[in-house]
Amino acid sequence: MIPLWVADTDFRAPAAVRRALEARVGHGVFGYSVPPEALRAAVVEHLARRHGWRVDPSWILFLPGVVPALHMSARRLLGPDEHALVPRPVYQHLKRAPEFARRPFSEVPLVLERGRWVFDLDALRAARTPRTRVFYLCNPQNPGGTVFTRQELARLAESTAPCVIVSDEIHCDLVLDESARHVPIAALDAEISRRTVTLMSANKTFNFPAAGCGWAVIEDARLREAMAAELQAHVLPSPSVFGYTATLAALKEGGDWLAGLIRYLRANRDLVEAGLKLPIAHVQATFLAWVDARAVPDAHALFLRHGVALSPGEQFGAPGFVRLNFGTQRARLAEALRRMQQALAGAAG
Amino acid sequence: MIPLWVADTDFRAPAAVRRALEARVGHGVFGYSVPPEALRAAVVEHLARRHGWRVDPSWILFLPGVVPALHMSARRLLGPDEHALVPRPVYQHLKRAPEFARRPFSEVPLVLERGRWVFDLDALRAARTPRTRVFYLCNPQNPGGTVFTRQELARLAESTAPCVIVSDEIHCDLVLDESARHVPIAALDAEISRRTVTLMSANKTFNFPAAGCGWAVIEDARLREAMAAELQAHVLPSPSVFGYTATLAALKEGGDWLAGLIRYLRANRDLVEAGLKLPIAHVQATFLAWVDARAVPDAHALFLRHGVALSPGEQFGAPGFVRLNFGTQRARLAEALRRMQQALAGAAG
Repeated sequence: MIPLWVADTDFRAPAAVRRALEARVGHGVFGYSVPPEALRAAVVEHLARRHGWRVDPSWILFLPGVVPALHMSARRLLGPDEHALVPRPVYQHLKRAPEFARRPFSEVPLVLERGRWVFDLDALRAARTPRTRVFYLCNPQNPGGTVFTRQELARLAESTAPCVIVSDEIHCDLVLDESARHVPIAALDAEISRRTVTLMSANKTFNFPAAGCGWAVIEDARLREAMAAELQAHVLPSPSVFGYTATLAALKEGGDWLAGLIRYLRANRDLVEAGLKLPIAHVQATFLAWVDARAVPDAHALFLRHGVALSPGEQFGAPGFVRLNFGTQRARLAEALRRMQQALAGAAG
Repeated sequence: MIPLWVADTDFRAPAAVRRALEARVGHGVFGYSVPPEALRAAVVEHLARRHGWRVDPSWILFLPGVVPALHMSARRLLGPDEHALVPRPVYQHLKRAPEFARRPFSEVPLVLERGRWVFDLDALRAARTPRTRVFYLCNPQNPGGTVFTRQELARLAESTAPCVIVSDEIHCDLVLDESARHVPIAALDAEISRRTVTLMSANKTFNFPAAGCGWAVIEDARLREAMAAELQAHVLPSPSVFGYTATLAALKEGGDWLAGLIRYLRANRDLVEAGLKLPIAHVQATFLAWVDARAVPDAHALFLRHGVALSPGEQFGAPGFVRLNFGTQRARLAEALRRMQQALAGAAG
């Protein structure tokens, strides 16, 4: 069985990260820790350099991960009767968050337009209610791989004003298309910045989710306090000291490694898009291909029987699709694609 | 300033832990992880060997730490109108948990009897209401250092039946008195086991709270599911892979190191109890002395001015007391005690 479902890659973390972890282990004392001051500075520097986004160090909250923060946002930013907008399809935790917190929400469909999954703004506006308070955004979009343009983001912000935008941007450093560029929605203008909670992490990019560290960027003091309360009270645990260490090393010294990763993932993506005889929207970012297998009866089970484990589309609210993680060694990916083609040929024949 | 407040020790983790972490870093891939099967077995073995407590592996839930689990227990085990009993004085998070979850609770006083802080059972019974559903216990008691006896625990269980007992036993492996023995309250009998959530961790004993791993032992399937739901939904993050690694190495190979630690802490405790001219209940367990400084006006600030930072008693619900962490190098402790004596002499003179 080739597992292409869990959303991490199979690569070793950058040497700089491994060296930093080794040094921290060598220190030998692992008492309670706080985020190193240098880490806050490194995040600020990273956002400015890579995304042209200037943030104040005080806007940053460190988190044990993006997923717990999505859940926390539903508990903390939505009153019990307040309503959220959630894209569909989308990474399950954007929907699970209001669900688990028992907040009402509506799903807003993404539609395929010129090969990209984008929002249907009319549907989005129609889904708003007088009690809509939070719009969940996933940018780059998972699944689907869309890198939303500045113009698209501006229209989304306008269509959801004055809602709070909770923007999961964990894949922001994994843009594969040379012509595309990640724009943090909060970077668009001051009004949007004041109502946005941006969630980010180096966990996925540099492949150390098991070390665990993320951050939120929140300009507005009231929103920030709402999100900080559970962290300060230790209701949510702090990141591990190894999460801090790995993140700092990755942001400061991981640039070359990341450039190499993106080249590798780009070629893997091209292999998937060329090698699989099923409709796949072009993956602008992420290492996750969103494959339209609706024409194949029970495609997920079919591929499983042929030795390839994908994520079933149901998980993202889109039965009939499957999500394929191509963040793996090319030979393994090629073998998986071969098996999938064989499965399709058998199903057709 | 000598900091004797944060509740961790200043010691290097055992060599076996450092070696295991080093090996895990060397592996280099830090993708999503699950608790190693060996860890579950090691916890079962540890509880049987050290505490004579036989638990089924399936009763164990791994946690990112004990504090988030205390908070989770208040959210998950208490309905919005259900009431909890919380000791006083006690480690702040046992009280913060129902407070933060907005559940009603009453504080139950501990009283000094023959030099040990024990429960006032009459006060405990009087504090119960028809809606009392959870009894929070801290055993060994923090602060105060009491190791509750089998008989005391049986009376507590009887006086709180049929409430759920959430028992924070994080200091269970730090019993300093050779004549005392930690008894997990759930180990008393089958009825008590079925209504107890026991919270434990190797973080404090082996001094790697910054790696972060704890566990709950919960026999009852319904209680276990209530506590597991947020972990399964990733509302609470998993422990880091380094937390798993450190805990496994500590439980399997940390025995000699722990024996040495206990000898060292015992001598430190004797130094504190002998060297400080203030009433201190005998510390049977933990590395935390609970010092009655009520006779000294503004003692916490006085000691601060003399270069010793302790935890103020207010934090535990007992103004006038201070908590002193003696989990540090003996020379540093001796210097802190010297400064404190000097402060007291000055205050008296």
